[in-house]
Amino acid sequence: MEGHMKFIIDRNLFLKNLNNVLKAISSNTAIPILKGIKIDLSENTLTLTGSDTNISIKIDIPKSDDLHIESTGSIVLPARFFSEIIKKLPGKDFSFEVKDSFQTKIMSENSDFTINGLDADNYPKLPEITRESSFVISGKSFKEVISETVFAVANQENRPILNGVNFDFNPKEINAIATDSHRLSRRTLKLATGPAVATNLVIPGNSLIELSKIIADDDPQVTVIPGENQVLFKISNINFYTRLLEGSYPDTERLIPQEATTTVELDALTLARSLERVSLLAHESRNNVVKMYLNVEDQIIKLSGDSAEVGNVAEELAFDSLNGENLEISFNPDYLRDALRVSITDSIVIKFTKPLRPFVVVPKDSDEKFIQLITPVRTF
Amino acid sequence: MEGHMKFIIDRNLFLKNLNNVLKAISSNTAIPILKGIKIDLSENTLTLTGSDTNISIKIDIPKSDDLHIESTGSIVLPARFFSEIIKKLPGKDFSFEVKDSFQTKIMSENSDFTINGLDADNYPKLPEITRESSFVISGKSFKEVISETVFAVANQENRPILNGVNFDFNPKEINAIATDSHRLSRRTLKLATGPAVATNLVIPGNSLIELSKIIADDDPQVTVIPGENQVLFKISNINFYTRLLEGSYPDTERLIPQEATTTVELDALTLARSLERVSLLAHESRNNVVKMYLNVEDQIIKLSGDSAEVGNVAEELAFDSLNGENLEISFNPDYLRDALRVSITDSIVIKFTKPLRPFVVVPKDSDEKFIQLITPVRTF
Repeated sequence: MEGHMKFIIDRNLFLKNLNNVLKAISSNTAIPILKGIKIDLSENTLTLTGSDTNISIKIDIPKSDDLHIESTGSIVLPARFFSEIIKKLPGKDFSFEVKDSFQTKIMSENSDFTINGLDADNYPKLPEITRESSFVISGKSFKEVISETVFAVANQENRPILNGVNFDFNPKEINAIATDSHRLSRRTLKLATGPAVATNLVIPGNSLIELSKIIADDDPQVTVIPGENQVLFKISNINFYTRLLEGSYPDTERLIPQEATTTVELDALTLARSLERVSLLAHESRNNVVKMYLNVEDQIIKLSGDSAEVGNVAEELAFDSLNGENLEISFNPDYLRDALRVSITDSIVIKFTKPLRPFVVVPKDSDEKFIQLITPVRTF
Repeated sequence: MEGHMKFIIDRNLFLKNLNNVLKAISSNTAIPILKGIKIDLSENTLTLTGSDTNISIKIDIPKSDDLHIESTGSIVLPARFFSEIIKKLPGKDFSFEVKDSFQTKIMSENSDFTINGLDADNYPKLPEITRESSFVISGKSFKEVISETVFAVANQENRPILNGVNFDFNPKEINAIATDSHRLSRRTLKLATGPAVATNLVIPGNSLIELSKIIADDDPQVTVIPGENQVLFKISNINFYTRLLEGSYPDTERLIPQEATTTVELDALTLARSLERVSLLAHESRNNVVKMYLNVEDQIIKLSGDSAEVGNVAEELAFDSLNGENLEISFNPDYLRDALRVSITDSIVIKFTKPLRPFVVVPKDSDEKFIQLITPVRTF
């Protein structure tokens, strides 16, 4: 190696990319070097890498007027601390130079930092993923499908496959399913472009939440590159790796009722507000349950919640239509709240069958395929 | 009692006052009834009371077009839960009615809550304070003096008197002193009105922080009514009670150096930004210390911080003037940061004597009396 690693860069350019890499770095990892950010400098590119072993993010910043590369090399620096320094530097640019013993000098105007670094050779290697079965999808569509399903994943050890969203990428659509076995969200969205052959991936919910933050709102192209037990998403200069959940995702098709005996159409926001009030009492009770009474003859819907300790609440609910049989049903209000939050129409249809059978929430007057299922609670 | 306590009130009017009373209510009090809010209804006034025994807040809402009083009475309701309900009620108004067994019915549009209340007779009595030595001061001035001193109070058991700000109210000025024995802030502010005779009070820092939040920014009159071991502040319809700290506040006059051997004038913001960077390293080290080198011959000021584990930083500092003797001094950067935050002028003067003697920070070119003292740290 001739000389030491050295570059000069525009601070805002660096910070923007640094903030994205930090999403993969956890301060309470068991592997000390993963608290660090890896910085590699080649002739033409500065590369920042962070990883928490579940997800890894690698960002390439090409040589430009804003990035002057003097001498190549690699170093690992403590991520949290390093980013605090960069945020607070006084100048528009800063210089970065590795000295002997991995000591790194960061200079900007009158400010002069020396940080103890680590040998980049000890940083874990990222997985190699070949591009052979890659395909491109719309970032906006992908982000939408993530937000409409990821809240319903499980978060437990005993059935890890349910901690992910099951994606089925087809030439013409994404089909995504998430369930924690108490509720389920299934969304199908048309794609302008998709893979040539259907691709099925179960992606951990936590990874999807971080990925979603990285996909900008301007609908960037997302290149999906599935690997053995990893998948790589490329979004402009960002490479986002996540592990996949292994095993077969359960067949959920048979869970979704095909008939309805009681059907109600109503405004999602009206229901959400009412539910929020009734939940105040439900949340104070041991079993967190609200009751819904649907009286078809009298055309009345009532919601109620109670807690022996604190008190009780009852509300009559406004609705657009109510048909079928009378029904009294109890359920966890948080599941219905989550379902309403991601509603893609102002009005929704709720289709019930029996008091102890799951009910579904679907958009009203829409061709979009979006179905949410909630299992009631036995209260007698 | 004829009938049960009942009123109908505008929800926003109630909420505004409720939010102020909540500032006195702690959810982790050892006295269960103090988790509640006391609601008293007389012929002409609705009164809300909250207390954590250190501070108590009592607010009177007079009868008006927005408050219709039907029947008098008293009740205690769980404060946090009750306020959640009021925040989420659907209507512009709500009705409030106490039924048998302290059950309280709250109705607003289609929403109908019943809350289990407690007997108001079991709520502790607030202290009686006579008005004889009361006086009126400007809320804006009082709030300013609080913010300029309260950060410097101690927060420990062994010398409780230092956990308060020592106020001396004179006919023409407020003089306030706070110290945690490592640093001190002393502010004197002219008053248009003050007490006829000087009044000395040591008020707990925590109480002052809450009081400050209650004094609105439109400079309301604050009536100060000192009592035996309590003081009552009246701000429009709000009565704010706090206990006083007993004992005599130490004489701090002799701590403040009258001479200076090194004097520097500089921009407060420039110093604050530099200090923030140097603190990054100081905060990583065991003793949290930065070093300042003042070289009068070369007209150079340097700030530096280091941590054996993480690295080091040094900066040259821009300044307006530097006079006197060379000096090398070490101090806790957080104390200087706090002093700079409340600076009332853009430029400040720092007056040093010896490396181990306290130094002072004062406004530059100002007639205002504001002096902050910081004790250095021995590092050799």
